[in-house]
Amino acid sequence: MHRVFLRDAGPDADRVLTIVGEEARHALRVKRLGPGDALELLDGEGAVHSACVEAFDKQGRGEWIMRVRIERTERRPPISPGVHAVVAAPKGPHLDEMISQLSQVGAASWSPLRSERSVSEPGEKRLDRLRRIAEESSKQCGRAWAMRIGTLTTFDDALAPAPAIVVADPEAEVYRPTRSPEIRLLVGPEGGWSKRELERALEAGAQVARFGPHAMRLETAAVVATAVILELERNHPEARSALPGDL
Amino acid sequence: MHRVFLRDAGPDADRVLTIVGEEARHALRVKRLGPGDALELLDGEGAVHSACVEAFDKQGRGEWIMRVRIERTERRPPISPGVHAVVAAPKGPHLDEMISQLSQVGAASWSPLRSERSVSEPGEKRLDRLRRIAEESSKQCGRAWAMRIGTLTTFDDALAPAPAIVVADPEAEVYRPTRSPEIRLLVGPEGGWSKRELERALEAGAQVARFGPHAMRLETAAVVATAVILELERNHPEARSALPGDL
Repeated sequence: MHRVFLRDAGPDADRVLTIVGEEARHALRVKRLGPGDALELLDGEGAVHSACVEAFDKQGRGEWIMRVRIERTERRPPISPGVHAVVAAPKGPHLDEMISQLSQVGAASWSPLRSERSVSEPGEKRLDRLRRIAEESSKQCGRAWAMRIGTLTTFDDALAPAPAIVVADPEAEVYRPTRSPEIRLLVGPEGGWSKRELERALEAGAQVARFGPHAMRLETAAVVATAVILELERNHPEARSALPGDL
Repeated sequence: MHRVFLRDAGPDADRVLTIVGEEARHALRVKRLGPGDALELLDGEGAVHSACVEAFDKQGRGEWIMRVRIERTERRPPISPGVHAVVAAPKGPHLDEMISQLSQVGAASWSPLRSERSVSEPGEKRLDRLRRIAEESSKQCGRAWAMRIGTLTTFDDALAPAPAIVVADPEAEVYRPTRSPEIRLLVGPEGGWSKRELERALEAGAQVARFGPHAMRLETAAVVATAVILELERNHPEARSALPGDL
């Protein structure tokens, strides 16, 4: 099923949408869709529209337009629990790949973390590109809610009160489910956390946990920690939790 | 701690080793090690040698040699359970990245899978390069046992009798621990499994399981499935297992 991500477009009164630019060109030239063909439209905020192509057309400077008719709309809930990954940005292309993988495994959001040893902070332009990557990934894996790209978060702000805060550290204990509907996950830079940061995390009531037998590159750690948290919280209610009564 | 991977080198009678080529140059020029500095030597088969630099020297065509003295040798067991990932090769650079990530999360081995819809089969030269990537990753994450790179495996061979066989499929049920010391994990190509392949997997007694709320790219699925299996099998003995008595 071909999927199109809707940017700044809401359904018209008559349920017909006009899709322009790259999405229209791709549907026609690469996917070779034609009138009557079915496709799925995602708004990235829970709406999944089943639609079909009405027509392709050209406007002004030869840009393609695709008109589609919405036949059915389904509203899906976001993945629960919401895992909000606050992760130091890896350098170079690893960041793009991490955003795609975090989206595939089901993170609710990613925000760049500034910590004592973090080395890279994406600017506005880069963050915009990452939003596009998250949207592209939504189409590939059929996410009804696109992963949100947040803004630069300091370590102190990342420890602000929250239902559950988890700090990934390869030297720590095994993760215990929190049974919380919203989980903030902190993953540090290649250089790891400073002693002071780990102390502050414990003071703030965070669970410091490891997510595998070895040290991992930060982008692998972020993706794997998100996947393990979602798997345990969603699918293994019998697993021993971090709640006092379960210890 | 600087780590060196030993290729085709065993400890001498007098516990002094000679390391040549890129590893020697890297230790001197990039890591700026000198006589007396400590380092760790990995043989990729469980031996971790604590050693120190004795001297650097140049041979013939200006190639660097590093002489090191082994001070202590520790033998570590492999990660248990052994997860043997038999995974269709993704195209292009994604394969290199998948090998590195599988090594980081702790897979015992990876072998390329030939299935009905697989599209890429690495040749001998590529497999050799993947071995190097697995060795490099061992140094980064401190793996005592390097991830083994296996040979092309057909779908039928991948279903040959084994203590536990797991087939990843995004439409299937949640993974249940097998309590087996060796687990063969099959991950299919982007096009997924054919109906016939899924039937054959079930006939062979495989557990068909999903590892996240969305469909994932095959390399993400392989890495995440390995990580989730290791986490549940190693650290959550209380999780409901696939054994008949536990269902």
